[in-house]
Amino acid sequence: MKRTAYLNDLGQEHLDQRVTVQGWVARRRDLGKLIFIDLRDRSGTLQIQVEPDSPAFAEAEKMRGEYVAEFSGVLRLRPEAQRKAGAGAYELIADSARMLSAAATPPFELGKGDEVAEEIRLKYRYLDLRRPEMFAKLWLRSQASAAITAFLSAEGFVNVETPMLTRSTPEGARDFLVPSRQTPGEFYALPQSPQLFKQLLMIAGFDRYFQLARCFRDEDLRADRQPDFTQLDIEMSFVEQEDVLELNERLMRHLFRTVLNEELPTPFPRLTYQQAMDTYGSDKPDLRFALPLVEVTDLFRGGEFAAFASAPSVKVLATGELTRKQIDELERVAKQNGARGLAWVRREGEGLTGGIGKFVSGVSAELIARTGVQEGGTLLFAAGEWKKAVTALGAVRNALRDLLKLADGGPRFHISWVTDFPQLEYDEDNGRWTYMHHPFTAPHPDDLPLFGTERQGEIRAQAYDLVLNGFEVGGGSIRIHDPAVQQQMFAAIGFSEELARQQFGFFLDALSSGTPPHGGIAWGFDRLMMVMSAASSIREVIAFPKNNRGADLMAQAPSPVNPAQLAELGLELAGPE
Amino acid sequence: MKRTAYLNDLGQEHLDQRVTVQGWVARRRDLGKLIFIDLRDRSGTLQIQVEPDSPAFAEAEKMRGEYVAEFSGVLRLRPEAQRKAGAGAYELIADSARMLSAAATPPFELGKGDEVAEEIRLKYRYLDLRRPEMFAKLWLRSQASAAITAFLSAEGFVNVETPMLTRSTPEGARDFLVPSRQTPGEFYALPQSPQLFKQLLMIAGFDRYFQLARCFRDEDLRADRQPDFTQLDIEMSFVEQEDVLELNERLMRHLFRTVLNEELPTPFPRLTYQQAMDTYGSDKPDLRFALPLVEVTDLFRGGEFAAFASAPSVKVLATGELTRKQIDELERVAKQNGARGLAWVRREGEGLTGGIGKFVSGVSAELIARTGVQEGGTLLFAAGEWKKAVTALGAVRNALRDLLKLADGGPRFHISWVTDFPQLEYDEDNGRWTYMHHPFTAPHPDDLPLFGTERQGEIRAQAYDLVLNGFEVGGGSIRIHDPAVQQQMFAAIGFSEELARQQFGFFLDALSSGTPPHGGIAWGFDRLMMVMSAASSIREVIAFPKNNRGADLMAQAPSPVNPAQLAELGLELAGPE
Repeated sequence: MKRTAYLNDLGQEHLDQRVTVQGWVARRRDLGKLIFIDLRDRSGTLQIQVEPDSPAFAEAEKMRGEYVAEFSGVLRLRPEAQRKAGAGAYELIADSARMLSAAATPPFELGKGDEVAEEIRLKYRYLDLRRPEMFAKLWLRSQASAAITAFLSAEGFVNVETPMLTRSTPEGARDFLVPSRQTPGEFYALPQSPQLFKQLLMIAGFDRYFQLARCFRDEDLRADRQPDFTQLDIEMSFVEQEDVLELNERLMRHLFRTVLNEELPTPFPRLTYQQAMDTYGSDKPDLRFALPLVEVTDLFRGGEFAAFASAPSVKVLATGELTRKQIDELERVAKQNGARGLAWVRREGEGLTGGIGKFVSGVSAELIARTGVQEGGTLLFAAGEWKKAVTALGAVRNALRDLLKLADGGPRFHISWVTDFPQLEYDEDNGRWTYMHHPFTAPHPDDLPLFGTERQGEIRAQAYDLVLNGFEVGGGSIRIHDPAVQQQMFAAIGFSEELARQQFGFFLDALSSGTPPHGGIAWGFDRLMMVMSAASSIREVIAFPKNNRGADLMAQAPSPVNPAQLAELGLELAGPE
Repeated sequence: MKRTAYLNDLGQEHLDQRVTVQGWVARRRDLGKLIFIDLRDRSGTLQIQVEPDSPAFAEAEKMRGEYVAEFSGVLRLRPEAQRKAGAGAYELIADSARMLSAAATPPFELGKGDEVAEEIRLKYRYLDLRRPEMFAKLWLRSQASAAITAFLSAEGFVNVETPMLTRSTPEGARDFLVPSRQTPGEFYALPQSPQLFKQLLMIAGFDRYFQLARCFRDEDLRADRQPDFTQLDIEMSFVEQEDVLELNERLMRHLFRTVLNEELPTPFPRLTYQQAMDTYGSDKPDLRFALPLVEVTDLFRGGEFAAFASAPSVKVLATGELTRKQIDELERVAKQNGARGLAWVRREGEGLTGGIGKFVSGVSAELIARTGVQEGGTLLFAAGEWKKAVTALGAVRNALRDLLKLADGGPRFHISWVTDFPQLEYDEDNGRWTYMHHPFTAPHPDDLPLFGTERQGEIRAQAYDLVLNGFEVGGGSIRIHDPAVQQQMFAAIGFSEELARQQFGFFLDALSSGTPPHGGIAWGFDRLMMVMSAASSIREVIAFPKNNRGADLMAQAPSPVNPAQLAELGLELAGPE
C-alpha cells in the first residue's frame, strides 16, 4: 500500500477523503474504549483514532511506542479547540491498520531527548535522529549544500573531488595516516584541506573551483572539534581580493535567503584585523552587540599608578552593575586568556570606587566621560602588551555577553569581514617567525620590501576571515603566484630551499609552470550550519559525530583489528616501553 | 585589469569594441614582423595579433608557451576563410600586453597529450588538465553532480554526510585502516560504502537520503579501479522495488537530458538475471548491438558428438566471416573466461565446414535455421555447465564487439535494468554459500521457504543492477527490515549469531528498534561519468587519480613517514622475516 502523502502534507484536499499514512507510533493512549495513536513521520505528527468496532482495532491494540505502522481511513478536521498547525489540524478515523515493524522499548524517551546525556544520544543515534529538531537541523544542512551547489555551478564553478589519500606533510596540524598495503612501510595521509590541489586546479586553468570537502586533522579535540569536518572550498583565478569578497557575499546572501529567508546586508561590514582586535579584542568579534573596548592608555601614561603607567596599552570595558561574584568569574576568564588579573572600579556619583578606585581618582572624570559608564556601572581594565591586553579583555567581553545575555533581542545574525591579517606571527615557543594563515598566502604588494627586515611583523597579508555571530565561519586569501615571492615567504619562516623542495617539491614545480593570479576561501561548513541552526555544538549538525575523544559510540570505532590485517601492512603494535 | 569575458563568450556584442582577455599562451608564431599568439582559457582559444608598432610588441616578444598573459585591444572578425566556431571567429588586435606569469618549458606538448605516456600525464597532471578535452570531462562530471543534487533535493531527499572514520568489518573487501593516536593500538576503517549508515538513516525516519559518497577498498587494483571512488548513494523508505526503479529512471533521464541533451527511453528495458545470462552471457550485457547467444543444447543431446552430447548447456553465436587469426584470438578470450576451448564452424552453402564441422553435419540445417548464419559466416560454440558456458560465450560476444566494431553506428547509449539476481551464491573456494550483493539484501518473499533447503541457490533477491553500454553503473536492492529474516540470511551464509553480533551488533539492535521497509541503490559515479563522456578509463574522469599501483605520481604518495609519527600511534614497522 502506498501512503497518500507525508503527514504534514495532508491538507484541505484530503479532508473527508480516504487516505493511507505510514510512520512511527509516537504515543498511544487508550481512552475508554477508544485507541488514540500519535503517528510520526519526518514531516510531523497525526492523531489516529481507532474505534472499538473498527477492523483496525485488533492490530492497533498490539502497537507500542516506536512501532512502524500503516493506517487507512477517512481524514477529519479535529474539533476546533484541539486544532493545531499542519497535521495537527486533522485526525484519521482508521478502518485499517497494519504493523510494519515492531520495536524494542527505546532506551530513552524521544520527547525528552534534550535532557538525555549526550553519550546515550550518540550511542543510539538512530533513535536520537528521530527527534524532529534533529531532522530539522540536518534538513537545513542538506538544503544549504544544495543551494551552494546550485549557485556556484550556475556561476561557472567546477565541482572537483580532490584526493582523499594523499601525501603527508609534517608542517601544520597532525595528519591521520593510512598505511599502504601495496608498499608496506609507506603511508598515505588524509587531507587536512585541499589547499595544494585547489591551487593546482588554478594552475591547470580550471579558473573557478568549488568542493564541499571532507578534511581531517588529528588534533587533541577541544570542546567542539571533530577529527573530520567539512569545508566549502572555493578558488578563483584572475581575481583580486575584492572579487573573492564580492562573490562570497552574493553566495552567503543567497544561502541565507534560500534556507532561512533572512536578508544579509549589502555589502558586509568590514574591519581590519587591527580594528577588530583594538575595538573588540578578537579577530572574530561578535557584533550582535556593541560594548567596545575603550582606549585609555594616555590617561595613565607616566602617572602615579605604576601598573598602568608603563603599560604599552590600557583598555577598559564599561558595563552595568556587577556583583562581586560576577567580577570574580570575569577575572577567571581574563586570567585564562593571559591576563594577570582584572582591575575594576564602580561608578558612584561622579567618582569611581572599589577595586582600583584609589589609583584612578585623578582621572575619574575623564574615564566616565570616555566610557559613558552609568551610575552603579562597572569599568573593567586590562593593561599590558597591546595584543595580550586586548585579547584578555575581548574574552571578558564575550563572557559578559553570556552573563548578561547581551546578544539576545538584537539581530539574529551579524556577519562581517575581518581583513588585513598579519602575514607573519612570531612563535615565542620556537623563537621563530611563522605564517599566520598558511605559507601560500600572498602578502600585500606594498609591504614586500619589509621581508627580511626588523619590521616583517608589520607585513599585511591579503587574507580575510568571514565572521558570523562571533564565529570564524570562513577564511581565505589571495595566494602567491610568483615563485620568487614564494621563496621569500619560505625564507621568512625559516624554510631552507631544501626543506621547501622536500615538502612541496611538486607544487613548486607547478608554480613555475604558468600560474595565474588566484585566491579563494574555505568555509567551515559544520560551524556555519551550527550558527545558522542556532545549535549548541557542531555535533548537533553532524548525523553521526564522534565524541570528544574521537570515538563513535554507536559503531564503536576505533577498535582493535586482526593481527593479520596489520601484518599485511608491514606493521606491528609497539610493545610496552 | 578585469577580463571582459571568457574567450569563447566573446561575441557579436564585442565586435570592434575594446576588450581585455587573459589566459595561457598555447602557441606563438612570428610571421614576418607580426606576432600571432593563440591564447587559451578553459572555454576556448583566441588569436591575438600584435603588430610591430603596437605598444604591446615588446612584452609579446618575451612570451613563450604556457606563459600566463593579458591582452587588451580591439576585437575583429577574422577573414571569412579562417573563421572557426566560438572564439575562432575573432581575433584581437592587441595594443597592450602584460605577462602575468612565466612558465618553464613543459615536459610534453599539450596538443599531443593523447600520445604521451600516462605516467607522464599523471606526474604533471596540472599540465595534462590544461588540455581542453580533460577540462570537458571534469566539467561534465561537475554538471552531473549539480544536476543530481538539484533533482534529488527537489524530490525531498536529504543529503547526509556519513562518517569517514568508521569501524573495520573484516567481511567483504579489505579495509583501509587509520591508526588512532588517542587510543593507540586501535584503528578506524575508511568506509567501503555507507551501506549501514544509510540504512540507519532509514531507521531514523529520514525517509529519503542521498549522498555523493567517497568510498575506499584496498583491493588489488585491476586495470580500471581506484583505491577510492565516488558513489551516488540513494535510500528510500516505505517503498518497493518498483518505486526505486521509477525514481532512478526519472533521475537518470533528467541527468542525460541536462548534461548531454540525450533522451533515454521510458521505461528502461528490463531483463532478469536469468535472461541476461542466457541470452547475452553477462549480467551486464552491452545491448547497443544484438548478437544473442542461441540455445542449441537440444540439437546435440544424446547425439554422436560426445563433447556436446552430455553438456548441460550448448550455446552458439553466429557472426560474419572471421579469419583463423581472429578465431584464435576469440578462443584465447573464451579460455580466459573459463572455457576449455572455442569450437567453431563456417557456413559453406547449406553445410558447415572447418573446426568441428564433421561433428555437426547431422544438425547443419537446424543450426543454420536457428542462428541465421550467412554464407561464409562463422558459428562459435560453448558447451558445459550453464553458467560457465554462457559466461565464456558472453566474453566472446564482447570481444566480437571490439573486433568488429559492432557497437559503432548504433545508439550512443543503451541503458537497461537487470533484476531478480540470485540471493545466494555457492563459493566453491570456501565450500559455502555466500551473499551475492550483501547480507542485507531482501529475498523475494515467495522464495523465503527455500532458505535452508537444497534449493536455496534458487532464492531470488529483490536486487537490481543498472547497466549502461555493458557497464554496471548502479546496483541496489530492497533491504531486509525484519530481524527474523536477517537472522535467516546470516544463518544461510554460515554466520553464527555470535559472529553476526560481533560484526554488526549495533546495527542489529537498530534493526529491532522500528525499521521501515526500505531499499535503495548506489551508482558507480566514476564509471557512469566515464561512459557518459566516452572516456577510455575512469582515470580520465578523476582530476588527480592514482595509477594502478595505488600511487599518486604527482604528489608522490604513499611515502615513508617520520618514526615519531608512528611512535605516537603505538606502531612500529615490522622487521624483515
